[in-house]
Amino acid sequence: MTLPYAQLFTFTEQIFQAIGCPDADATLATETLLAADLRGIDSHGVARLGGYVRLWEAGRINAAPRVGVTYETPSTAVVDGDGGLGLVVGPKAMRVAIEKAQLVGTGWVSVRNSNHFGIAGYHAMLALAHDMIGIAMTNASPLVAPTFSRERLLGTNPIAVAVPAGEQPDFVADMATTTAANGKLEIAQRKSLPIPAGWAQDAAGQPSTDAHAVKNGGALLPLGGATGSHKGYALGSIVDILSAVLSGANYGPWVPPFVAFLQPAANPVGQGLGHFFGAMRVDAFRPADEFKAHMDNWISTFRAAPAVEGKQVLIPGDPERETAAQRLLGGIPLLEAVVQDLEGVGKRFGVKL
Amino acid sequence: MTLPYAQLFTFTEQIFQAIGCPDADATLATETLLAADLRGIDSHGVARLGGYVRLWEAGRINAAPRVGVTYETPSTAVVDGDGGLGLVVGPKAMRVAIEKAQLVGTGWVSVRNSNHFGIAGYHAMLALAHDMIGIAMTNASPLVAPTFSRERLLGTNPIAVAVPAGEQPDFVADMATTTAANGKLEIAQRKSLPIPAGWAQDAAGQPSTDAHAVKNGGALLPLGGATGSHKGYALGSIVDILSAVLSGANYGPWVPPFVAFLQPAANPVGQGLGHFFGAMRVDAFRPADEFKAHMDNWISTFRAAPAVEGKQVLIPGDPERETAAQRLLGGIPLLEAVVQDLEGVGKRFGVKL
Repeated sequence: MTLPYAQLFTFTEQIFQAIGCPDADATLATETLLAADLRGIDSHGVARLGGYVRLWEAGRINAAPRVGVTYETPSTAVVDGDGGLGLVVGPKAMRVAIEKAQLVGTGWVSVRNSNHFGIAGYHAMLALAHDMIGIAMTNASPLVAPTFSRERLLGTNPIAVAVPAGEQPDFVADMATTTAANGKLEIAQRKSLPIPAGWAQDAAGQPSTDAHAVKNGGALLPLGGATGSHKGYALGSIVDILSAVLSGANYGPWVPPFVAFLQPAANPVGQGLGHFFGAMRVDAFRPADEFKAHMDNWISTFRAAPAVEGKQVLIPGDPERETAAQRLLGGIPLLEAVVQDLEGVGKRFGVKL
Repeated sequence: MTLPYAQLFTFTEQIFQAIGCPDADATLATETLLAADLRGIDSHGVARLGGYVRLWEAGRINAAPRVGVTYETPSTAVVDGDGGLGLVVGPKAMRVAIEKAQLVGTGWVSVRNSNHFGIAGYHAMLALAHDMIGIAMTNASPLVAPTFSRERLLGTNPIAVAVPAGEQPDFVADMATTTAANGKLEIAQRKSLPIPAGWAQDAAGQPSTDAHAVKNGGALLPLGGATGSHKGYALGSIVDILSAVLSGANYGPWVPPFVAFLQPAANPVGQGLGHFFGAMRVDAFRPADEFKAHMDNWISTFRAAPAVEGKQVLIPGDPERETAAQRLLGGIPLLEAVVQDLEGVGKRFGVKL
């Protein structure tokens, strides 16, 4: 089924209102969540709406949080998400980073007591309108084994960096620090397909091409999987440390699971999960026009590079931007299983899809 | 041949003095350069001393630069390296970042008009003594093909992040954003061995296991090589942008080559090559003791994870720290080819190895 963006927006907004989100928060959460569907990251969008509702039903999401700064310096802040939706906490914390950058050049915000925040790229991109470089990362439920480990200790811990350009479209990198995001395994599971080597290992820590490997006690592999995962492990660790050790959120194996049927650790080392945001004014380094002219040159140089036969060199963000343009006009395609889940959620609150 | 660290230090310092470095700069350059040999990154240490000297002979390194801040805000600065050794410019720029962090919580410095700066980890680690998280990155001569490209447009563009711990040794990640650093290809070349799949491609953009592939018109692959290099390409691009587009250095294919027999681009888009440094006071987020106690818990939890048979889970920085401890006592092993090159350099200036 394909639904117009506006229709999916209204439905999602009404669900967030129904669980008790104040109107402005419901709108914000919807915009954040659907940014994933627009940009083609289907695993992180409305397909997760039911998951958020079930977490709320389990008392693990505060629909009306008081998000606030608990500590700050001129260029830093710690934000407490008060157990709210990361979809709401994230943009509010990013705004703090942007305001600090306006005053002292850069702003850096570490967040505790939050929940999953959708796609990292959405938050990083909030900086673009201010001629700032935006950075966003988050830790997540443990699904990833450090190099040589049989145990899952890290989430897919994504990093996003958005850089403003001039005439060219902006540069937007948004990547899990694993070889593949868990959403890609879920897609392979639904289609009963094997997964490529380097994506996952089994419960004994051996390489596996079974899409169910992670479900059956295995783990996702950090970026670099097949040829050495130590760099991806280091990147995922850095995200965990900046997002949670710095803020006072849970880290490593203590990060609460996204699914309501799994219980959070009994001995938490912090509050909720953590995010980390950065905003850097480009004119805190050189005049913005000059910076953007060179970004245009950077982008057009890379895009024009001689390519392998049948391919074209892309700029990070190109595919997602094209998908977003198509889906804004043509609607959001939804898998049948997702539609059924959404209809169930709708029925629960008397909201029609 | 194995030489005591102190002996290699004196020799290297005398060479830097001989090319005209002021005494303090010669000492600083030596400490920076030999940090690579101590930590086991042999490709980036004294093996490159001859290369630096030949660049100086070609008039492409200023031995007595006036390194200075050309623009700043409370949390940012642009530093002009005045064509100096990156080995000297780097630590001076990192000091600016640390001083800004002392005042406003974090400091971020983009550097132009510099040269190769040794290992990124050395610069990031300068923050540790100040209870700060240190970040260092640099762009480098183009050897890496973006995903789908036949052309080299990026350097191996490393990222280093150093995080202070309490009782545990500090966390120090230092990685090229390629699957393998160029130094590893050089080692395979010297030993006439093939290289693993995923490290490099040939001139047509096809995967190659020939250690000479890059020399023969091919390219190194970004991190993720065999299973998809787009994430490594994005990471290397981010390093290039923060180091050079932000500072006014050369970026992409315009970054000057390290070897003196290759000429810099005739139409530079900036000055020299670029670095990017960050320093974040941990107590700009939470009390330093609290942070370090949680880092200790993070580190001991990860190190104690059940491992694949015959292996142990390592913390980023573990192998390099152990190598440094051994080499400080037992000396620095040098390949015969490196010793010969150093003896040649020594003869040129009347300095005995």
